[in-house]
Amino acid sequence: MNSVSAEPGISEPYLLGFLTSVGLDVEYTRAEGNTLFFRGDDGEEVPVLDAAGGYGSLIFGHNHPELVARARRLLDEGAPVNAQFSRNSCAQEVAALLSGIVRRETGSSEAYAAIFANSGAEAIEAAVKHAELDRVLQVQALVAELAEHTAAARAAVEAGEAVLPAGGHEDFEALVEEVSRANAEVGARPPVFLTLEGSFHGKLVGSVQLTHNAAYRTPFTALANRARFVPLDRPGAVGEIIAEESAALRDIVVRDGVVTVVERPFPLVAAFLLEPIQGEGGIVPLTREFATAVRRECDAAGIPVVIDEIQSGMGRTGAFLASSLIGLRGDYYVLAKSLGGGLAKTSAMLVRSGRYRNEFELVHSSTFAKDGFSTPIALKVLEMLEADGGRAYGLARERGARLAEALEGVRADFPDVVKEVRGKGLMLGLEFHDQSESSSEVVRDGARSGLLGYTLSGYLLREHRVRTFPTASAGNTLRFAPSIHLTDGEIERLADALRAVASVLRDQDEKRLTGGGA
Amino acid sequence: MNSVSAEPGISEPYLLGFLTSVGLDVEYTRAEGNTLFFRGDDGEEVPVLDAAGGYGSLIFGHNHPELVARARRLLDEGAPVNAQFSRNSCAQEVAALLSGIVRRETGSSEAYAAIFANSGAEAIEAAVKHAELDRVLQVQALVAELAEHTAAARAAVEAGEAVLPAGGHEDFEALVEEVSRANAEVGARPPVFLTLEGSFHGKLVGSVQLTHNAAYRTPFTALANRARFVPLDRPGAVGEIIAEESAALRDIVVRDGVVTVVERPFPLVAAFLLEPIQGEGGIVPLTREFATAVRRECDAAGIPVVIDEIQSGMGRTGAFLASSLIGLRGDYYVLAKSLGGGLAKTSAMLVRSGRYRNEFELVHSSTFAKDGFSTPIALKVLEMLEADGGRAYGLARERGARLAEALEGVRADFPDVVKEVRGKGLMLGLEFHDQSESSSEVVRDGARSGLLGYTLSGYLLREHRVRTFPTASAGNTLRFAPSIHLTDGEIERLADALRAVASVLRDQDEKRLTGGGA
Repeated sequence: MNSVSAEPGISEPYLLGFLTSVGLDVEYTRAEGNTLFFRGDDGEEVPVLDAAGGYGSLIFGHNHPELVARARRLLDEGAPVNAQFSRNSCAQEVAALLSGIVRRETGSSEAYAAIFANSGAEAIEAAVKHAELDRVLQVQALVAELAEHTAAARAAVEAGEAVLPAGGHEDFEALVEEVSRANAEVGARPPVFLTLEGSFHGKLVGSVQLTHNAAYRTPFTALANRARFVPLDRPGAVGEIIAEESAALRDIVVRDGVVTVVERPFPLVAAFLLEPIQGEGGIVPLTREFATAVRRECDAAGIPVVIDEIQSGMGRTGAFLASSLIGLRGDYYVLAKSLGGGLAKTSAMLVRSGRYRNEFELVHSSTFAKDGFSTPIALKVLEMLEADGGRAYGLARERGARLAEALEGVRADFPDVVKEVRGKGLMLGLEFHDQSESSSEVVRDGARSGLLGYTLSGYLLREHRVRTFPTASAGNTLRFAPSIHLTDGEIERLADALRAVASVLRDQDEKRLTGGGA
Repeated sequence: MNSVSAEPGISEPYLLGFLTSVGLDVEYTRAEGNTLFFRGDDGEEVPVLDAAGGYGSLIFGHNHPELVARARRLLDEGAPVNAQFSRNSCAQEVAALLSGIVRRETGSSEAYAAIFANSGAEAIEAAVKHAELDRVLQVQALVAELAEHTAAARAAVEAGEAVLPAGGHEDFEALVEEVSRANAEVGARPPVFLTLEGSFHGKLVGSVQLTHNAAYRTPFTALANRARFVPLDRPGAVGEIIAEESAALRDIVVRDGVVTVVERPFPLVAAFLLEPIQGEGGIVPLTREFATAVRRECDAAGIPVVIDEIQSGMGRTGAFLASSLIGLRGDYYVLAKSLGGGLAKTSAMLVRSGRYRNEFELVHSSTFAKDGFSTPIALKVLEMLEADGGRAYGLARERGARLAEALEGVRADFPDVVKEVRGKGLMLGLEFHDQSESSSEVVRDGARSGLLGYTLSGYLLREHRVRTFPTASAGNTLRFAPSIHLTDGEIERLADALRAVASVLRDQDEKRLTGGGA
């Protein structure tokens, strides 16, 4: 066997070129709390304040000592990482804790069952599959019931106990034929998933169709299910769209001795998916009014609500579930990111007991899910969140309020540059005014291509050793998702850096922005 | 805040009940090499010989000291696990090694670019998305070219340089209208993915439609793309089905002064996915003849071949790629399982440079992929495979041959019970004869429900402390995927246990099988 010779770097070459072009191509060598380190030209460690926080995966910061100790103990003890298809008490403990926390925050009387997966997107796919399985089983039951009713009506007609209505069909079988044809047409309609304009639910084949950004979604529309996007600025739209997406099957029954056709609602909409605070859409919180409309209309139509708490959940907003802050209860919850403690990869999809289908366990599984490394770390994360009467949630609220105040201070100083500060707790965004008419070519081109946010990220990293990124589908908004251990000093550094970037934009100083001429 | 009270175990309750019913509900507490340990009633560790090997994730066994040391060092050094959107040399090294190894085994002159993901199913979804993006971009280029041709033909007609053919359309625009209508019809056809009967490519929304097992797939058909399943016992079927799934667009060109309509092939089939050895389908190796037909027909039609090496790859069959043993070259490769060393979760999708689309990097990403924990472990795994001139591959071949010989010995002793031994290297399966006419009710019912394999697994665990499972879609076949460090003693223990289970089946001894009456 020949040994393998080195090849040029070929993982995401285009991305690497892009990172280089905006000055984001540093290599981090160590991480601790809210700090990432790279080595400078002199070999010394250079600290960078990490406000991106692993896109929300680091509620306790990088390499939290208690989580690292838990991981180390698993290695020391020779934990069985791959022991699929065996009893897993730790996963049951995680599931029980998740269910208990959700019930406490939502006041639900029902427990929630957990399905584990490896990433947020995978857990969304699991929710989509579960909702569709549930819908298909509902349809099967409904169709069976209709067949029974038709048989009963036929028997009644034959026994002379029921008659066809006057002026109607020639005979019973003609009626059955027409009803069957109409029902077959309705039954053939593909399921609809409702989601919101600005939504982001991941990039797998199923989930990407529920992500609103057309650039991510439209190349793949031929591959998957249909989503209907609901505008989130008009709560009244929820009911209207649900009404548009409703359908009915015809049921042949006997009433007072007369064969009668009645309508039965057909479950066309499989689920309504939403983020309580849209992350990649630009850190946009849903209003309580909108949430109320979603719950009311979905309850009326029997549609399950899937709450994507991948970015907003796990305590980041000051509650375990950001949705609980607007009084929204979900039939499903999807959690990921910080559930793995910043070390492991895990995610969970929770289903309310009343909607849970045992059949799902026969059709869904994953080699890596529910493993013996990520699950104990997830348990430790939940224990840390719940410790000391929920001190972590309090910290998220208090540190978040302090950070929001600092960001508002920047906006107050630069109202011509900074448009808005949004979010809750430690899930915050700062939106810049549109720069597509800027007098600076660099700024203008960046704004028009949607990539200005990355140029600002490059500036902040190079000049201020601060790490943050724009949100994926709203390039004018910088995101902040630091840990609950964010210090006053770190908040000050961040605010100073943002003042500097605002000042550069105010001055349209493209030389300072790109480091040109240096 | 109230503390959370304990809830009953609610992660996959149905599965847990099933594990209990067949005696598989032990809780493992430690793992090492090919051994999992649980604690007996007396608190003592009970060793179990693990022939399931994490469904193929443990090429070096559980908790291999070198891999554990690598993981521990990452924790000790405070490695930056979550440093998305930065330079990642280690991922580039993994990508370069993967590309180099694939090129060595296949003789490819082209490098392969790598996209990382978190699980095998996610990497399959990435391949499906990449292939569809490539197809869509091809269609766009073709449509643009056709529009240019039409414009050029129109200009030629108007300039009197070209004429319409005699007896054809009234005028040029009538021809354009007819061609446009025909082309729109072809263009609206959804993409087709070819895959094999018996295939298993995962259970996410996209990938599950490419998995042949109807129980996994059909509840979700309304959600996703169309697959066409090719029988693998008839190489001639490959070309026939590709011909059936072919389509053409009409191109208006001028030839020798005459406006002429020619056909241009339309890429309707996005990809052909296959496993070189079907895993969940029952450890079924593809023949070299079939592989040759796939490559030839796909080359002729311009269809990319996606080789799913999730279970068969990473050295398990004695080569890095099981497909290389039958001379099959892929345009894409998908790797997972052992790539994470049995500790971490990672997967990779490789694309041949000539087909790689930079645009893919703009539409696909994952928070957890390419992280700083799994990537260095994957690098270590590859280094261990390649060390000492590829000693690991040699071990897989040699130990695999020894194990196959032992399994063949069982078959020779029980030809009435054991039907066949299949597979390569350390990816082996032992198929029992159908028992659905057994005189034992337990055996007969198990065979008819497809769950007999799990009853056999329960017997092997309870009576012989051996862990193995049936394959997911071929319940009569037990799977064996141990590590390359499998000893002669372990092989002997496994063969003895299989002799015992074969003897129980020969005797139709349901009491011994289920432990009843004990």
